[in-house]
Amino acid sequence: MEKKVSGSVINRLPRYYRHLTDLYESGTERISSKELSRRMGVTASQIRQDLNCFGGFGQQGYGYNVEALRAEIANILGLNRGYTAVLVGAGNMGRTFVTNTKFESRGFKLIGVFDNSPEVIGRRIRNFEILDYAQIGRFIKDNRPKMAILTVPKHAMKSVAEDLISMGITAFMNFSYAELEETDGIIVENVHLSDSLMRLSYKISVSEDNSKAREN
Amino acid sequence: MEKKVSGSVINRLPRYYRHLTDLYESGTERISSKELSRRMGVTASQIRQDLNCFGGFGQQGYGYNVEALRAEIANILGLNRGYTAVLVGAGNMGRTFVTNTKFESRGFKLIGVFDNSPEVIGRRIRNFEILDYAQIGRFIKDNRPKMAILTVPKHAMKSVAEDLISMGITAFMNFSYAELEETDGIIVENVHLSDSLMRLSYKISVSEDNSKAREN
Repeated sequence: MEKKVSGSVINRLPRYYRHLTDLYESGTERISSKELSRRMGVTASQIRQDLNCFGGFGQQGYGYNVEALRAEIANILGLNRGYTAVLVGAGNMGRTFVTNTKFESRGFKLIGVFDNSPEVIGRRIRNFEILDYAQIGRFIKDNRPKMAILTVPKHAMKSVAEDLISMGITAFMNFSYAELEETDGIIVENVHLSDSLMRLSYKISVSEDNSKAREN
Repeated sequence: MEKKVSGSVINRLPRYYRHLTDLYESGTERISSKELSRRMGVTASQIRQDLNCFGGFGQQGYGYNVEALRAEIANILGLNRGYTAVLVGAGNMGRTFVTNTKFESRGFKLIGVFDNSPEVIGRRIRNFEILDYAQIGRFIKDNRPKMAILTVPKHAMKSVAEDLISMGITAFMNFSYAELEETDGIIVENVHLSDSLMRLSYKISVSEDNSKAREN
């Protein structure tokens, strides 16, 4: 299938995938756009419009085939391509991410966890022994991971990223509070938890102002 | 100032705020839209368009006043309103979030951390003693926090959210893998780390397909 889907649809696809996975795992075979819209809190027409991009999964009055639609979205997102990943930085954030994230069902297989602190090297997170960052060059050469997750401190991010790029890594998920730029041939997803706090602060302040305006 | 700013500009504001904070902390007084665009990886015209919404902070050939622009964005985001927050769920994610996040500079003052597990109640994260979730009703009555951060397991999220709503909490930052719906009067920011993984998977697969296409 041609991958010609708009950016905003792509941004919504992971959410569709999560909801369809919940439905699939609870044994639901079909769902109407109306019911899916209720669950997801978006309009049914938005859903029909989004999912129309992917061909004939919905039929008037019949709904979507949950399993087929989920499989197609997984396919578009590349979740079944078996990309491998290493994680650098086994601090709090790294540990949380390794422990809580269903990597395998989100497109990646985690194959190595690295840190440079003698205090944590050799310890375990889930089934991973934390390896010495000094050895990552060898590991990357041997295992050719596709992607690196950076959960290192802000000040270390740039130099770690440069190291890894020179070793052939071309995709990054970056959790450190500094931003990694997406340059030629390098794919980046920066995650900023504090941006979500700020957006929430904005929403609260708008709602506060609105209710004050109503009182007057 | 009237808060009439489009949703997509609002989504970019936290990012402007982060970059302006870095600049401010490094002592930069003025920055051109060209230089800011280079740092942020967006076009200078996008920046001028976004920041025009907030009045006259930029002058042709003179650049933006970093401190004034940063203060205005903080003001729009409500970061100086001193909202208070409690966190429920002192597991890995909760600990990470309390440890790593600069709450105070992101609009919130964390005033309490709660869990229901006897094993963690009484322990400390940063300067917070973890309190018994059974006591949260009393705490909310006495301290009237504005917002709750949910870092509880997926299966517990709904009931915790309902509890807290009944106790008067109207804003949530939700990290659990289930989605909390934004209903009447309830403000929600859902954070899904695995969505970022899926978006990254998508970007990698597109770039893979493109380079294969170029080879043919």
